[in-house]
Amino acid sequence: MTTGVRNILFIMIDQLRWDYLSCYGAKSLQTPHVDALAARGVRFTRAYAQGTSCGNSRASFYTGRHVRSHGATWNDIPFGVDQWTLGEYMHERGLQTVLMGKTHMRPDSNGLVRLGLDPGEGLGFSLAECGFVLGERDDGLHPEGPLGYYSARPPRYNDYLRSHGFTGRNPWLEWANAGEDEQCRIVSGFYIENAHRPARVPAEHSETAYMTGRAMEFIDAAGDTPWCLHLSYIKPHWPLIAPAPYHRLYGPEDVPPALRSEIERTAPHPLLRGFMNHRVSQTFTRDEVRARAIPTYMGLVRQIDDEIGRLMAYLHEKRRFDDTLIVLTADHGDYLGDHWLGEKDLFHDASVKLPLIVVDPSSASDAARGSACDALVGAIDLIPTFIETLGGTPPRHRLEGLSLQPWLHGKVPSSWREAVFSECDYARLPVAKAMGLDALEARMTMAFDGRWKYIHCLGFAPMLYDLKDDPDELRDLGRVASYASIRERMKDLMIDWAAGLRNRTAIDDKEMTELTGKSLQQGILIGFWSEDDVPAEMRPRPLNAPN
Amino acid sequence: MTTGVRNILFIMIDQLRWDYLSCYGAKSLQTPHVDALAARGVRFTRAYAQGTSCGNSRASFYTGRHVRSHGATWNDIPFGVDQWTLGEYMHERGLQTVLMGKTHMRPDSNGLVRLGLDPGEGLGFSLAECGFVLGERDDGLHPEGPLGYYSARPPRYNDYLRSHGFTGRNPWLEWANAGEDEQCRIVSGFYIENAHRPARVPAEHSETAYMTGRAMEFIDAAGDTPWCLHLSYIKPHWPLIAPAPYHRLYGPEDVPPALRSEIERTAPHPLLRGFMNHRVSQTFTRDEVRARAIPTYMGLVRQIDDEIGRLMAYLHEKRRFDDTLIVLTADHGDYLGDHWLGEKDLFHDASVKLPLIVVDPSSASDAARGSACDALVGAIDLIPTFIETLGGTPPRHRLEGLSLQPWLHGKVPSSWREAVFSECDYARLPVAKAMGLDALEARMTMAFDGRWKYIHCLGFAPMLYDLKDDPDELRDLGRVASYASIRERMKDLMIDWAAGLRNRTAIDDKEMTELTGKSLQQGILIGFWSEDDVPAEMRPRPLNAPN
Repeated sequence: MTTGVRNILFIMIDQLRWDYLSCYGAKSLQTPHVDALAARGVRFTRAYAQGTSCGNSRASFYTGRHVRSHGATWNDIPFGVDQWTLGEYMHERGLQTVLMGKTHMRPDSNGLVRLGLDPGEGLGFSLAECGFVLGERDDGLHPEGPLGYYSARPPRYNDYLRSHGFTGRNPWLEWANAGEDEQCRIVSGFYIENAHRPARVPAEHSETAYMTGRAMEFIDAAGDTPWCLHLSYIKPHWPLIAPAPYHRLYGPEDVPPALRSEIERTAPHPLLRGFMNHRVSQTFTRDEVRARAIPTYMGLVRQIDDEIGRLMAYLHEKRRFDDTLIVLTADHGDYLGDHWLGEKDLFHDASVKLPLIVVDPSSASDAARGSACDALVGAIDLIPTFIETLGGTPPRHRLEGLSLQPWLHGKVPSSWREAVFSECDYARLPVAKAMGLDALEARMTMAFDGRWKYIHCLGFAPMLYDLKDDPDELRDLGRVASYASIRERMKDLMIDWAAGLRNRTAIDDKEMTELTGKSLQQGILIGFWSEDDVPAEMRPRPLNAPN
Repeated sequence: MTTGVRNILFIMIDQLRWDYLSCYGAKSLQTPHVDALAARGVRFTRAYAQGTSCGNSRASFYTGRHVRSHGATWNDIPFGVDQWTLGEYMHERGLQTVLMGKTHMRPDSNGLVRLGLDPGEGLGFSLAECGFVLGERDDGLHPEGPLGYYSARPPRYNDYLRSHGFTGRNPWLEWANAGEDEQCRIVSGFYIENAHRPARVPAEHSETAYMTGRAMEFIDAAGDTPWCLHLSYIKPHWPLIAPAPYHRLYGPEDVPPALRSEIERTAPHPLLRGFMNHRVSQTFTRDEVRARAIPTYMGLVRQIDDEIGRLMAYLHEKRRFDDTLIVLTADHGDYLGDHWLGEKDLFHDASVKLPLIVVDPSSASDAARGSACDALVGAIDLIPTFIETLGGTPPRHRLEGLSLQPWLHGKVPSSWREAVFSECDYARLPVAKAMGLDALEARMTMAFDGRWKYIHCLGFAPMLYDLKDDPDELRDLGRVASYASIRERMKDLMIDWAAGLRNRTAIDDKEMTELTGKSLQQGILIGFWSEDDVPAEMRPRPLNAPN
């Protein structure tokens, strides 16, 4: 079906919890512009990340494949050169594919060297950067420590800040992600005690506004050339510091109570206990931390909402509203102290569940506008959705996701997945060392069927949550004898899933089908007693016939 | 440990059943030269193929990875360019890596084109041919049918035959794999009714002798340059026709009784029934077929044994006996009518179990000479064994096998795998069509723990065999209620196995470890309330310090 869609605007918001948007139920925090997108499109209420940190989750967005299949198992772990990426799929459909912001992708340098490809140009560059060939990559992490800078290169944003008078060695750190204390000393946004201070740049020069502006510049320059624009906001990811007035829109009274209970600490799963022992978990367990950090997190989300409002107005002005598919999502959430945890990586909804809003401007979607969809969906579904929206057929020998188009058009597909899956390789987290696990043993896999969330933990007992009777996921049933049959059923789903992953990626279904049955007519005669048993049209020429 | 081994001789015998060697218990068929290898080395009694047809099994031998990981799921399905292969690992250790015979590898042409590599030369050729850079590839399948030749190119062996007076359009088919009937008509070796006739070439010009000769030529030419030689025999794979005298060494009286029972046909697993319906299964179920085919199969094995004797004498003469590791194995077996089945693909021992003999010439192996080892081992273990034997450390972030060196040195490693796994993608077999399965649904996975053989069948009930109480695998317990707890335990092994496969292949454990903990000292300060909480040596410079 042709939809008239020519462009894709794929907005990702780093570390945005699904429930910190008013259309998903946030209370004090209002996000009217995101809500307006939801009113124009479909809001998915059970969307899940395929990985729970930036690198692995994004790799699933950018390849349409599970972590087990692409192999970028955590931050800074590359996937191999063989993986097709968003940019490559979009290029096939004739779209200029542009990044503005973060991908967190580390190129497979070893693989590129092995193949004699230069990551700095042409094909090598495209493979090294998810197929994005234009735009501005900025992963939003530019601090410096005793071992030097975290990022190899300073961001273009530093030059931008300097050109606006925010000078110094590293304006990203000293202005955009810093505040000033009562003694007018510059203090770092990395320290949570400073989260209530305004950033040292005005909102219009913050990272969020800057990237929005870069996206608008691109849209303007592109004119009528079709594009896929990945606008990838860095906030509300830490450092938690917001420019005025967003630093003071919310206060401790707006902070939702922590989702946690004493039961969770009584006899937790050993891995859960290990994660609770992480410094960030201990920190976010303190009420003063939540009271200081979360209002700023909310302010940063609110700023993004305002910038999305600005961007939508611009799209409208440029007459791109009716031919652009718009997606708004996140790479994962943030515990923010829920379940006695900080950061992400585990599989409670606070971490693994995603906001996902898709606006299909075509008339085929009119019936679905403003609706909520509770189908089990995920990061891997975006590339197939984009391809189908642009009139193509998603190559399912590589892509593990499903096109969301039926849901976007208000239809119920005849079959859909029974469960969603997500994975975590925690080898690089302190818990692995504390548990004595080596680099290949720290693996968890989640299966969620809409009610039961089963988590396979290599080397440990599983976890199990019943989201119907225990929606806040406070009671781990993984070792409760009476739930054995539920666990067995979830294991069956997990084995089937693993067996059905797309490993035969080198040839598509068409090539596969063409091969089949051909060999018999090329003389490969298996299991025939005599020539008489071979159908006449399949028979090779007699051996003693003249050449 | 340095072993003094400089060369690797890796002999593969196509479609050789593990129990058609006298050292593995064959009765009439005597294989003294293979037995002599077993007497010099270690004979593995529980070696298993990771795939059950030529292409997928060999891809596991050539990559050291399971089918699920390399993706060459059946014959003519390529694995991707990212996969490292035997030749590449051996090249790293300074060995010239040479193929004489069959690989059945189809190059990833799409992947090579995408990366701008020419499969005809240099890196592209190496990637297209498992890293073999010298030698002679001959997959041993050169028939012709109404759609033309099966192989793209005629074999060099055709030229060889012509130079010895065996002329014609396709001497492989007309001489080496043909016989003559009573009316002196040339008849094809593809038809089993002709299996008792002598081939039209003398033994010394048969494929088996030819490839042995080619191997000897290479060994002679190589001199003292270290090498890895993959001598890959085509026989006893069909066409089943043997040169004199091997065509008449065995008769119907030498054919072992078929391993099968009426129980198997009473209410078989639906997939087993589907495979029983294949033409080749129906054919090999007939006693006259077994009586005609199996003596020739035995004769072909006996010929290989003689050629191995010739090769060993040559190695000895060339003083290569003490610095060459020798491996003899097969890619899979052949049902030959057992279980009412023909060919391979399923997971009874007749199909999935391998002969595997490894001769380590170093003195460290003296204690183990002539011993049998019942450890669970497989195709994926060869590359790690080769690397360790040559003094290297197998890169376990890619390789899924384990080095056999402890067993070769008569030691029991402190830990070993609990089960072996094998896979089958039967999408291209008639059973898939008969079952209405599409190109991605036809998947089976076997787990064998030394007693229980559990087979997960995507979309169907599992199969289960108890090899202790039912060593002939005649009774499928997959749907017998009282074995539910066994099945659950095997499922747990399968989930653990799948979760532990090597997907993070782009960086090794060392790079992984170096990354860990570094970010904190590059200023990534997560979960700190204030600077006071950061250990002094990790602290970034104060922000208001002079540059």
